[in-house]
Amino acid sequence: MQRKSFDKMSCPIARSLERVGEWWSMLIMRDALDGMMRFDEFQKSLGIAPNMLTRRLNALIDAGLLLRRRYSTHPPRDEYVPTARGRDLRPVLVALMAWGNKHFAPEGPSVILVNRKTGAIVDPVLADRATGRAVEEPDYTFAAGPAAGTRTRQRYDAAHRVLGPARTRRTTPRNSTSRSKHK
Amino acid sequence: MQRKSFDKMSCPIARSLERVGEWWSMLIMRDALDGMMRFDEFQKSLGIAPNMLTRRLNALIDAGLLLRRRYSTHPPRDEYVPTARGRDLRPVLVALMAWGNKHFAPEGPSVILVNRKTGAIVDPVLADRATGRAVEEPDYTFAAGPAAGTRTRQRYDAAHRVLGPARTRRTTPRNSTSRSKHK
Repeated sequence: MQRKSFDKMSCPIARSLERVGEWWSMLIMRDALDGMMRFDEFQKSLGIAPNMLTRRLNALIDAGLLLRRRYSTHPPRDEYVPTARGRDLRPVLVALMAWGNKHFAPEGPSVILVNRKTGAIVDPVLADRATGRAVEEPDYTFAAGPAAGTRTRQRYDAAHRVLGPARTRRTTPRNSTSRSKHK
Repeated sequence: MQRKSFDKMSCPIARSLERVGEWWSMLIMRDALDGMMRFDEFQKSLGIAPNMLTRRLNALIDAGLLLRRRYSTHPPRDEYVPTARGRDLRPVLVALMAWGNKHFAPEGPSVILVNRKTGAIVDPVLADRATGRAVEEPDYTFAAGPAAGTRTRQRYDAAHRVLGPARTRRTTPRNSTSRSKHK
């Protein structure tokens, strides 16, 4: 499937999606982080076509999220183990879980997050590591970082010039105008 | 593009991906949450083909993440505004940003998260809302929730029977074996 790559984009979200944004990839990582390691397990869990699963596993290996490890030589058999980079994807999956539970589980949550030691159910929220304060709208916003190029800088500078509600209608940038709508 | 739907799966991650897992969808939501509202803005930002952008915008409207709003009648022109459900996707995007900055930005971050009032840079971390404690490996794990069906229950019950390192090699479930590797 030929599609535009996000890899040339400087945005870290785009670069992340370049690695896990294909259909199936995140669910394979979900299964891998839930402890599955073998081809048959992934296939059974996902109901995915074998050639597609092979392709996705290879892509995740190439992206450094999984390691291939031979566990049998006769017959030759490999298993797939998450790397540190793969394990670091967990917060993305947890955030997707929380969003899904809130918006797409009218029957109640079928998967939750628990503390393994205490068994306590965890309500996952994005927080500022320094303050422990929850990161919630509308107090937080994306901004250009130190390595930002001109385009990224323009995009976010425009947004930051007007932090409060703006009434003016402009064609570009609209950032300030719509932000005010989020409040 | 015909592809297997995740909508019949009970997993909240799968259900979320059914709404935002298509190539482009998350980047459109990123732009929408950055304040873009108009077709031309999305197209310029993403370099996406117009027919594809139309398809993705319609899917995001159908999924309840965006609202279509007419801002001009002569000529007829619509803009696209995030709903509460769409805004709730922000933590997913922030988690993707943090993962991308950590693993795919060798030149340093080009996009960061800041507190809009103080301008302080935020290091986003997943935390337990009740305790404020960071949710980090290996203390937390997915588990079957109250609405879990048999399959989900089997999947996670097996993982929970052995919380510590397990040495036994089994074909199914492998959960405990691989979990021990994460430590």
